[in-house]
Amino acid sequence: MEELKQLLQSDDDAAIVAFCESYRPYDLAEAAEQLSSSEQLRLVRILPTVNAAEMLEYFEPLLQYRILNRLEREMRVQLLSGMASDVVADMMLAIHRYQADQLLDILPEDYRRTVQKLMTYPEDTAGSLATADYIAAQSSWTIERTLRHIRKVGRAAEITSYVYVIDTKGELIGAVSLRQIILAEPNARLSELLSGEVISVPALMEQEEVAVLLSRYDLVALPVIDDHNRLVGVISVDDLIDVIHEEATEDIQKLGGSQPLTDTYFKSSIFQLYRKRIVWLLILFVAEAYTGTVLRHYEDTLSEVISLAFFIPLLIGTGGNTGTQTVSMLVRALAIGEVQFRDIFKVIRREVATGLMTGASISIIAYARAWMLGVEPNIGLVVGITAMTIVIWASFVGAILPLVLHKLKADPAVVSGPFITTLVDGTGLIIYFTIAKIILHLS
Amino acid sequence: MEELKQLLQSDDDAAIVAFCESYRPYDLAEAAEQLSSSEQLRLVRILPTVNAAEMLEYFEPLLQYRILNRLEREMRVQLLSGMASDVVADMMLAIHRYQADQLLDILPEDYRRTVQKLMTYPEDTAGSLATADYIAAQSSWTIERTLRHIRKVGRAAEITSYVYVIDTKGELIGAVSLRQIILAEPNARLSELLSGEVISVPALMEQEEVAVLLSRYDLVALPVIDDHNRLVGVISVDDLIDVIHEEATEDIQKLGGSQPLTDTYFKSSIFQLYRKRIVWLLILFVAEAYTGTVLRHYEDTLSEVISLAFFIPLLIGTGGNTGTQTVSMLVRALAIGEVQFRDIFKVIRREVATGLMTGASISIIAYARAWMLGVEPNIGLVVGITAMTIVIWASFVGAILPLVLHKLKADPAVVSGPFITTLVDGTGLIIYFTIAKIILHLS
Repeated sequence: MEELKQLLQSDDDAAIVAFCESYRPYDLAEAAEQLSSSEQLRLVRILPTVNAAEMLEYFEPLLQYRILNRLEREMRVQLLSGMASDVVADMMLAIHRYQADQLLDILPEDYRRTVQKLMTYPEDTAGSLATADYIAAQSSWTIERTLRHIRKVGRAAEITSYVYVIDTKGELIGAVSLRQIILAEPNARLSELLSGEVISVPALMEQEEVAVLLSRYDLVALPVIDDHNRLVGVISVDDLIDVIHEEATEDIQKLGGSQPLTDTYFKSSIFQLYRKRIVWLLILFVAEAYTGTVLRHYEDTLSEVISLAFFIPLLIGTGGNTGTQTVSMLVRALAIGEVQFRDIFKVIRREVATGLMTGASISIIAYARAWMLGVEPNIGLVVGITAMTIVIWASFVGAILPLVLHKLKADPAVVSGPFITTLVDGTGLIIYFTIAKIILHLS
Repeated sequence: MEELKQLLQSDDDAAIVAFCESYRPYDLAEAAEQLSSSEQLRLVRILPTVNAAEMLEYFEPLLQYRILNRLEREMRVQLLSGMASDVVADMMLAIHRYQADQLLDILPEDYRRTVQKLMTYPEDTAGSLATADYIAAQSSWTIERTLRHIRKVGRAAEITSYVYVIDTKGELIGAVSLRQIILAEPNARLSELLSGEVISVPALMEQEEVAVLLSRYDLVALPVIDDHNRLVGVISVDDLIDVIHEEATEDIQKLGGSQPLTDTYFKSSIFQLYRKRIVWLLILFVAEAYTGTVLRHYEDTLSEVISLAFFIPLLIGTGGNTGTQTVSMLVRALAIGEVQFRDIFKVIRREVATGLMTGASISIIAYARAWMLGVEPNIGLVVGITAMTIVIWASFVGAILPLVLHKLKADPAVVSGPFITTLVDGTGLIIYFTIAKIILHLS
């Protein structure tokens, strides 16, 4: 990094290029992000187009645009043509419409149409992840002709392990791997190599679903088709890995009771951290405030037997813990498609049965704890029974809510740990005081 | 599924094979898992070896073994040879050593050595994920010779987009894509196609690290080398997607306060669910019991101003929520390598600053809530100041603990939502009563 900065002070372009070529595009991009914008510009200008384009692909869309915008028209066209079409489309969507139109205008007709088509797919859909830089071939072609075609267009392609086979109407009818092509006879036709149905996804499929399919069938690339079964692009597995990471990060942040960050942790400002967290904190605070009402309602009971207060945090805390365990497990199982709404009774049975066992274990310890604190035995009984009841209750609510939300097409991760904890706190107190009043014969 | 069961009742082998071939291996395996073991055996016997082997690869190791064990020796050898070497190695490790030795004995010498080598790598390392079914070639070979080699061994390979180039000592010196091979002149040498250093990982690297590398550099396959830089296998990106999914699932379960399940949700028995959950529930229960001691210590204060009890769940709940938000975000950022221990002061600064802002917002609402409950103004003041203090405290503890655990090579996800909630509950009460005593001038 420091070395690169120093080299850029010099006039030795050859040394700079040699230095950059010894780096992988990702690492080079990371180093270049730290440079001043005039240094970045210089680097892009002197690097060979293919290297500069590769480095640019790793930049944030707005940085890509800032650099491109300051280059001459000719160079801009070359770099944009060298970048992957899906990356270019993402950049166009990130900048102002007017700026995007200006950039699109200078692109070659064909490429412009491709990028414009990719820009039409909503974020987080299969279409938005797809690249148009794949190799397509007609089913009637021979292997020899296909090889000639690959030699002509293959250098620019991003998806390189497969050739996608289309018919004369442009409809996708299969995929043939380069291995199959190498193994086949030169005069065989592509149509003869096709076996079985090709797995493809509609352009508007949600990216989570795409990820499930891709990992289920162990694919490295997945073609995307439009309503008319025409090939619009191909998703590469490495783009999907980013999606899988992002989705897991979002789910973890949501389960932790925040709205998910739009950026990575360090790229988010403190104000953004505040904004993403305060929403749920306030909602939950207001909901939790209900516990005050419950406690005031039982004020007389509490005054009469003050030692009941000792166990409040313990009992509602345990309920919250149980609920958090249950919802985390189920929200994840829903996300990876293992659990569905139709399993609801099975899930309830499993969770309540588990809650019965954990509740029984906890209630014994709870009774022992009450005895240790030296309160009267009846209160120990109240605490033990309440512990068991709250654990089962939390398991039950924690089992139902995520599944119901999923059914309602809402995000089950809304039922975060803090959410279920808050819910169980108020209801848990009612359970506690109801049991206390019955066993201790209070009015 | 039902159709398959019915077909298996008949003697029409051809119809069964045709039916099975219309399914993808994963789907076929899922259907076959529901069959009786004699039906499974029949299916494996009549399917072409390649299809049967592909289906077997998706089964659980113990099921693979049960089926193989009941087949004739010749068929067993064929199926084992047809299965991916890493899958075979995993199965061998899952069964009893004596059984594994018996199976290994019948394998061809070469293949046995390969599998035995793969079996030496500990679970969750790069070596354990690698397959030996890749294509390797000498750097001195011409493209023509390489193509002949691919035609000879390529059909059996699992990793098919790259040819791994080794020198005469077996050391890995590069990788050449099939695309490059197709684009190159027939009499060019592989050594001429190599550009830059190839990315490889040592066999003992942890799988999480492998996942980070693979997604950072957008690779579809990653060669694995031993201490002497010799190629021992190649990891395919689809195997790594499973790893990424598993790691995220484990982290979510841990953050939810459970030990992670070893199996998927529905494959885990209720007793397993109980075992994985009760450990932390009990630990946290015992830790939370400390709140009882704290409250008993403040019994006189509480009797004097009973309305202080109204706000206990609200205040400690908010502390727990804040802590959960912070740790979820940081544990995830640590897992994907975005945050490291050396960032600790930066993280503390960010979290405390955020805590200050959320705390200030919450304290206003807390004061309002106290006013609404009709307690005396001074208590409102206590509640407001406590809310702010607890939120900042929870942010601070939630920022430090995961980073310190990570530094100590412990799993930061141990600091789950329930863990931090429990920690903040006890300390939060001390903060509450200390502030109360000062402001209300209690003894």
